[in-house]
Amino acid sequence: MSILSPFKTLSAKSAFQLDQELMSTGEFSIDQLMEIAGLAVAQIIHKQYPPSQTVTKKNNKVLVLVGPGNNGGDGLVAARHLKLWGSYDPIIFYPKKSTSNQLYSRLVKQLQDLDIEEVSTLTEVKHLLDRRDSGVALIIDALFGFSFKPPLRPPFDDLIGYLSANHKHLPPIVSVDIPSGWDVDAGPVGDDIGASCLISLTAPKPCATIFVNGGSDKVHYLGGRFINPHIAKKYDIEDVISKYPGDEMVVKL
Amino acid sequence: MSILSPFKTLSAKSAFQLDQELMSTGEFSIDQLMEIAGLAVAQIIHKQYPPSQTVTKKNNKVLVLVGPGNNGGDGLVAARHLKLWGSYDPIIFYPKKSTSNQLYSRLVKQLQDLDIEEVSTLTEVKHLLDRRDSGVALIIDALFGFSFKPPLRPPFDDLIGYLSANHKHLPPIVSVDIPSGWDVDAGPVGDDIGASCLISLTAPKPCATIFVNGGSDKVHYLGGRFINPHIAKKYDIEDVISKYPGDEMVVKL
Repeated sequence: MSILSPFKTLSAKSAFQLDQELMSTGEFSIDQLMEIAGLAVAQIIHKQYPPSQTVTKKNNKVLVLVGPGNNGGDGLVAARHLKLWGSYDPIIFYPKKSTSNQLYSRLVKQLQDLDIEEVSTLTEVKHLLDRRDSGVALIIDALFGFSFKPPLRPPFDDLIGYLSANHKHLPPIVSVDIPSGWDVDAGPVGDDIGASCLISLTAPKPCATIFVNGGSDKVHYLGGRFINPHIAKKYDIEDVISKYPGDEMVVKL
Repeated sequence: MSILSPFKTLSAKSAFQLDQELMSTGEFSIDQLMEIAGLAVAQIIHKQYPPSQTVTKKNNKVLVLVGPGNNGGDGLVAARHLKLWGSYDPIIFYPKKSTSNQLYSRLVKQLQDLDIEEVSTLTEVKHLLDRRDSGVALIIDALFGFSFKPPLRPPFDDLIGYLSANHKHLPPIVSVDIPSGWDVDAGPVGDDIGASCLISLTAPKPCATIFVNGGSDKVHYLGGRFINPHIAKKYDIEDVISKYPGDEMVVKL
């Protein structure tokens, strides 16, 4: 079955190539790209779930599920900005910390200096989400991005299984780049965490087309505004890049 | 003479210490901080000199004067974002390129990939500014920041002398962190480039108080929103940090 897409997309393979190109010949550092991407995630959350609406003083916790790679890094940066803005109280769950890359430990230290709480086990995550009075207003799914390849490994298999089974009774889930558990190109292949909001970074991946066709309550944003016209042309994403208005770093698609 | 300041300020010495602290115990990378600071500079320019008002299609060039250190780096990042947004056409003048730090050459490559022009001599700068039809709408002074110590060395002495002598007939000058040529704490000590807009980064420096007392046409913004409450308290800049509304990364003071 082929679904007509309302926007151009970047396949898993192309997204990987584009990312490599930005950091090799493009000479961007991962720190730069992640800062822009993570800030975009935070700004989209502020737009879609503004303080005093979804997020109230008593219900201002944002549970950030942090994966082992760059998607997780975007989540860590987003958590920092949200906390700095004062109206959100992020809590991170980061079970598989990278030991090979200093960037991630630095991002975590930046969060610790902001007194951001961390939960360390899936049991704690479930406890937090099962309690109605725990004050969690939102869940950020920064588990896996465009480089995800199955199978899901522990504890992510259990976590995604839990979210899939329970999302109807949970706070809204905001997925960064792809709904975790989905195939980047093919979409749902098993568990579906039922994300309410998808934040495509750089450009939507093919599974974003399936996401937006999932119902009128699904919202879809774009962030990661760092693509120059030559790269946009090469990867055929000029139309989507052109949607940002003025100096906005994010746009609702 | 002591002037009552409408905001708390960071002395040259404190600004240096705070910066060191962010990058040592704070574990921020210069890439991260510069990306946030440079983006703020670009966003302030978009706010204060929006496309179709000061900046028109025929008059959309922004001459970015890039100094040898981090202030120059903020200017390079700002130039990138302005160009990506499509309504500005930055031209850079970067006469003393750092050879010891890869970051700067990477920032320049990112601009080259956006087809941003560069002028390489002061003669070209003067020629561009002396011609009424050259289309320069704005000048960004990203020459020196909080770590500036006199004397001015060539070609910056001539450049600042030229701007000081001619600023009344030139497009508005936007200074990043301090008006270049001024002393960080004491303000004007000789040449005065006559900046119209000052963008304080992290927190205003003492000379910002003198700047805002320079006339009702002087505008002053704050950017560089990355200070956690502990550091804000330690450096006594909590009041100024608290001025950012919502998720805004810049604020007019």
